[in-house]
Amino acid sequence: MKFGGTSVADTERLKAVAKRIVSAREQGERVVAVLSAMGDSTDDLLSLAYEMSPRPEPRELDMLISVGERISCALAAMAIHDLGYKAISLTGSQAGIVTDTTHGKAKIVDVRATRIHEALDAGLIVLVAGFQGVSTDFDITTLGRGGSDTTAVALAVALGAEVCEIYTDVDGVFTADPRVVHGARKLHAVSYEEMLELSACGSKVLMLRAVELARSQCVRLHVRSSFSGDEGTWIEREEAMEQAIISGIAHDSSEAKVTIFGVPDRPGVAARVFRPLADAGVRVDMIVQNVSSDGRTDISFTLPEDDLPTAERVLATVGDEVGSQGMKSDPDVARISLVGAGMKSDPAVVADMFDVLADAGINIEIISTSSIRISCLIRSARLEDAVRAVHDRFGLSESPLEKGESSVTSALPPD
Amino acid sequence: MKFGGTSVADTERLKAVAKRIVSAREQGERVVAVLSAMGDSTDDLLSLAYEMSPRPEPRELDMLISVGERISCALAAMAIHDLGYKAISLTGSQAGIVTDTTHGKAKIVDVRATRIHEALDAGLIVLVAGFQGVSTDFDITTLGRGGSDTTAVALAVALGAEVCEIYTDVDGVFTADPRVVHGARKLHAVSYEEMLELSACGSKVLMLRAVELARSQCVRLHVRSSFSGDEGTWIEREEAMEQAIISGIAHDSSEAKVTIFGVPDRPGVAARVFRPLADAGVRVDMIVQNVSSDGRTDISFTLPEDDLPTAERVLATVGDEVGSQGMKSDPDVARISLVGAGMKSDPAVVADMFDVLADAGINIEIISTSSIRISCLIRSARLEDAVRAVHDRFGLSESPLEKGESSVTSALPPD
Repeated sequence: MKFGGTSVADTERLKAVAKRIVSAREQGERVVAVLSAMGDSTDDLLSLAYEMSPRPEPRELDMLISVGERISCALAAMAIHDLGYKAISLTGSQAGIVTDTTHGKAKIVDVRATRIHEALDAGLIVLVAGFQGVSTDFDITTLGRGGSDTTAVALAVALGAEVCEIYTDVDGVFTADPRVVHGARKLHAVSYEEMLELSACGSKVLMLRAVELARSQCVRLHVRSSFSGDEGTWIEREEAMEQAIISGIAHDSSEAKVTIFGVPDRPGVAARVFRPLADAGVRVDMIVQNVSSDGRTDISFTLPEDDLPTAERVLATVGDEVGSQGMKSDPDVARISLVGAGMKSDPAVVADMFDVLADAGINIEIISTSSIRISCLIRSARLEDAVRAVHDRFGLSESPLEKGESSVTSALPPD
Repeated sequence: MKFGGTSVADTERLKAVAKRIVSAREQGERVVAVLSAMGDSTDDLLSLAYEMSPRPEPRELDMLISVGERISCALAAMAIHDLGYKAISLTGSQAGIVTDTTHGKAKIVDVRATRIHEALDAGLIVLVAGFQGVSTDFDITTLGRGGSDTTAVALAVALGAEVCEIYTDVDGVFTADPRVVHGARKLHAVSYEEMLELSACGSKVLMLRAVELARSQCVRLHVRSSFSGDEGTWIEREEAMEQAIISGIAHDSSEAKVTIFGVPDRPGVAARVFRPLADAGVRVDMIVQNVSSDGRTDISFTLPEDDLPTAERVLATVGDEVGSQGMKSDPDVARISLVGAGMKSDPAVVADMFDVLADAGINIEIISTSSIRISCLIRSARLEDAVRAVHDRFGLSESPLEKGESSVTSALPPD
């Protein structure tokens, strides 16, 4: 059971989490719970760090920000004791989460779960501080964004858990963001591959990395609400489920677009543009190169808006080197992505997607596809219109059962 | 170098601490610094714990409240890096502070300083989280009140340090509390034995336990201000210094007095009263038994006011068992103590002390003495008058040098 920051935001919510854990124990389960830091406490620690230094030493930053999850676990253990059950809180190190030495975004290299096994065998509920481990150099490390999800999945693998439950502030994975699409529907199940595409395209429910680990190790995930007892969304192997044509829509308005004009159309030029960007840590996503005219071409690509200043700095030099005729940045773009495992067998989906955007008068600037995803870059001002129109066009609001189908997970287009 | 909670109260003060540590390093010292938690942060964590449970599990409480010192150390390390020096923060566990398993007041059983030695040899400044260790069961423990002082002294012993500097919010050890006595004078040096008596009698500068450890291991302590570069007070072996007749006055208004009336004057009765109190954890200090009349006597004793409810509960039963004729509690008492290593060779001091209190019209309710201390229990309303009168009578405001003596540490009575 993994509980995120909003689920443990204050002592009242922590008590509710303690009750839920105890209730699972009372049903005879052996429970290991991974907790995040309370609410904004990690951000508060980060602010302190930046008061001390403009570039805090990464090792010390990890020592600092790893305390929030320990506080949550110790407090939850106290509440569980108060409910009459024995609990033990463990730091990442005590739980046996061994990582490499990359402070701030360490990778788990081993899980030595001896102490967890001993505690479970002694009848204890085990609480593990998420987001952290101990490096092979015996220093405290943190796992980066979504680290607690990764801790939970890694422990589920090491312990051979039946399921890894991710408790969060939403009811599960939806066909689209319910704040944008009123009729968005909770999905009963999605495949690992679909969830990967959804996470990569802006869905905040689960971090990409945790989904990747769950897929490679075949751990069943159950994303569900901390605040209700309702079933959420299962994330599992494709073979385990009926295939939906379309599962859902993800969107992301934190992208920016860069265009480099008049680049000589010669072999090796693209590498000379994108290698220095990669070296500077800029995460380029969609790339499109125009048809050449007069031996020159325009290259456009998208990147996270946060990386834009770095990219502009790098390209100021690179542009001259490759002899381009200028560049332009554009932060007012957004990406809408349609994801569905069944898409690969239905070529009409791509055409339908373009149709509906055209009907709504929305211009498509860049297109990228995978076998189970279509993404279109559009003006960010039209993003919500686009999400609603696509959601409606593919009939995602309607339950598959209402449409008379046997599978509860498929969502066929209505035509 | 040990820095207490007020010395690291906020990020500005932490930066000042970082500068002071770096300045010692620049003078060629190999520095190990022990830091306390920032300001009230430990109290804030305790409040959270009591929101979770009226009686928080001790193991979990230690997991929780040990984070404050880690935060201080990590932040200070960042600031030191920013000043161009390399620093490493270590938890109690990483620093090799091994304790027994008594959560909340663990005793240090070993210091395995390998990692500190390695860091010092590599030219690093070492920051150690005070107040904590790791138990022989691999759980995080805390050392109880004054724990960071104890950490500092234990590390000074293990590392063979030249001196253990205790940085605090006062300039050193004074002849009396400067808030009470305007002319109180900072002492250049006091012996371990004197400091033990001063700490036991209410001086807040150093915790008794750290002084005991320093004495038994012969570690020189230097109590000095975090906010100035001035020399403070040295605490060292008596042989190392000229002996003062009187070093200073300590006072404590947190005491209470209990009197049990009409106790049968028979062997074994005192044990039947005080054994159950000791078993209940009541810390009895001064005890006086009146002269017997009619085979019965009255017993009075002092105890910390906090222990009064427990004592009253225990004595309600015990009083009946021993056949006493009633009891009375009195919280409005205070203790004034005069401490000086030279006192043992000067019987006039005791008489002088009684004289000055009598002249001030202050009644003495209980007296207790050691070879280097006289304590008198008086009404708490008269405490400040008593401290000022005794300070004045023994001429403690005047510097020994002004009085034409060779030792800067002695403070002879003026007559």
